[in-house]
Amino acid sequence: MRGLGRLHRGGEVAMVSVIHPDSELSVWLSSELDSVSRLIDDQLAGDHESTDALCEQLLSYRGKMLRPSLVLLSAKAIAADGRYETPLRTAAAVLEIIHLATLVHDDVLDEADLRRGDRTINYLKGNEAAVMLGDYLISKAFHLCSTLRDPDLNILLGGVTSTLCTGEILQLHHRENLNLDRATYFRIIENKTGVLISACCRVGGVIAGATESELESLGRFGSAVGIAFQIRDDLIDLTCEREGAGKSVGRDMAKGKPTLPLIDYLEQDNDDPNAILVVTHSREAMRTMLESAGSIQRAWSAVDDLVSSAVQEITSIPASNGVTALQEIARRLTARVGSVGGQPS
Amino acid sequence: MRGLGRLHRGGEVAMVSVIHPDSELSVWLSSELDSVSRLIDDQLAGDHESTDALCEQLLSYRGKMLRPSLVLLSAKAIAADGRYETPLRTAAAVLEIIHLATLVHDDVLDEADLRRGDRTINYLKGNEAAVMLGDYLISKAFHLCSTLRDPDLNILLGGVTSTLCTGEILQLHHRENLNLDRATYFRIIENKTGVLISACCRVGGVIAGATESELESLGRFGSAVGIAFQIRDDLIDLTCEREGAGKSVGRDMAKGKPTLPLIDYLEQDNDDPNAILVVTHSREAMRTMLESAGSIQRAWSAVDDLVSSAVQEITSIPASNGVTALQEIARRLTARVGSVGGQPS
Repeated sequence: MRGLGRLHRGGEVAMVSVIHPDSELSVWLSSELDSVSRLIDDQLAGDHESTDALCEQLLSYRGKMLRPSLVLLSAKAIAADGRYETPLRTAAAVLEIIHLATLVHDDVLDEADLRRGDRTINYLKGNEAAVMLGDYLISKAFHLCSTLRDPDLNILLGGVTSTLCTGEILQLHHRENLNLDRATYFRIIENKTGVLISACCRVGGVIAGATESELESLGRFGSAVGIAFQIRDDLIDLTCEREGAGKSVGRDMAKGKPTLPLIDYLEQDNDDPNAILVVTHSREAMRTMLESAGSIQRAWSAVDDLVSSAVQEITSIPASNGVTALQEIARRLTARVGSVGGQPS
Repeated sequence: MRGLGRLHRGGEVAMVSVIHPDSELSVWLSSELDSVSRLIDDQLAGDHESTDALCEQLLSYRGKMLRPSLVLLSAKAIAADGRYETPLRTAAAVLEIIHLATLVHDDVLDEADLRRGDRTINYLKGNEAAVMLGDYLISKAFHLCSTLRDPDLNILLGGVTSTLCTGEILQLHHRENLNLDRATYFRIIENKTGVLISACCRVGGVIAGATESELESLGRFGSAVGIAFQIRDDLIDLTCEREGAGKSVGRDMAKGKPTLPLIDYLEQDNDDPNAILVVTHSREAMRTMLESAGSIQRAWSAVDDLVSSAVQEITSIPASNGVTALQEIARRLTARVGSVGGQPS
């Protein structure tokens, strides 16, 4: 199949749109994301018609190209006129393919049937095909990364993907645990979301020749953005309707995953635990209870605080359009949504 | 957890047993496999108690250490007195961890509840935990491989694992396809089993400094052994009882996977397809039909032929105890089993 390119939706527009459309940076990012998309298409095509057919279904998983954008812009923030296009594009493609793999397996775990408004792989092709497609994507990502012939990058990515799994396994371990504490919740979402976003920023920095201190700043920026983004994602799952969210909602409750508003509510000692057990059978009742107690508002405040700290973190890197673009992405990604809206990313 | 070592069953004895027990090679292999086991334990322990708990369940997946044995003996066949212990052990551990990952996900795909006489991860901990554990293992394998700092090895392994997935996806694609032809069946089993066994032999050869021609021989040897081994495994699934096999049997029929005896039978044009559809509801009836037609015997002959060609293949490498041991393993691995026996490997 050479067809993925044909089907490509140009989802990168979403990330490019945060930058002034006529700027040099915007033109560069748009063009680079296009190259990254083609590189992903090339990597995932041609092994066999059966794998091609599955990969074509991935279209509905391909969204805003957030992770490649962060790789590219982190490099730009470090060296505005760097000549590192090939390794940078490759690394950006690797991180997006890893992300796609996690989405495919997450949807199996969540028994989700909708993603970005389209049917999920597990819904369309069954869990078995989805499990194998995820494995295929992970393997392709590692293979592509290896072609950069930089063992440190491979070591970093192997560490990142095992940490992602640790986060998911920890979450499974705490399923139905109403005593889940805030620190463990943050550890789960840092592992399952923060670490990959953080790696995107670090990898971009590494390829652009960042200092150790700049890498630390980029890493902390990415981690805070990732954690904020996951809290927002959990809030959308709790508060938005399926039509506005463009994906299955209410999956956290269905799967017994306590998220920040509920943890906050239980910390306030508002009610006896039995009341919670009754409420957890109705998303509407849960939402009303958490809104009344201010727990949803406090979760949004936690998102705001994380984004402020992320934006502040990279002020230690000399000011540039790249740094500004990263800060703007952090804000857009984590913007508040009402109880019926919310675009997934 | 430092507990995996404690629980280790010493399964390596099975592969060591094909070599004369008092020989220098046997002592070396036994000691190396012990080091490889400890390396695997170390890699899979300590991230979090929830991952440790899952990895402890892997005990029932750890068997004869076939793949590490092939890595080690292939190196020995090339350079009998080589000093390559650390990278060789690491590579051997990487290939065993990849194998464990495929077993965990295979059991999810097959909905199997028994492996090596013990309950499977998916049975004990659920499909979600099994999916994540498999991902965790793949990530750990790539991470460990990267520490060898040899990009070619990483590229080879990334290619191998994506090929494994292609094989499984191709098999899913042909589920319930009674028109599956012999060539496609062989492609499926080469991809899903032959390629990994072949990689074990090649990787051992690479680390020992084999010539390109020797690597080709080792690779063809491994591929033929792997294909033969998979045909035998499919025969056990069809003909053995659960008690003798030590694992779930009849999964191929339950999952609609045509295997060699049935393909052979259909090639003979013995019967009208409707008769087959009736028979495929009973494993007993299927076995009787295929035995009467000689299809099971011919599948065993195919195993024998593949093993003969594998044994012949590595006679091009100068004779040594290592070469002899590889040949003996090929024979033992693919030994015929009766309709009630059959030890899984």
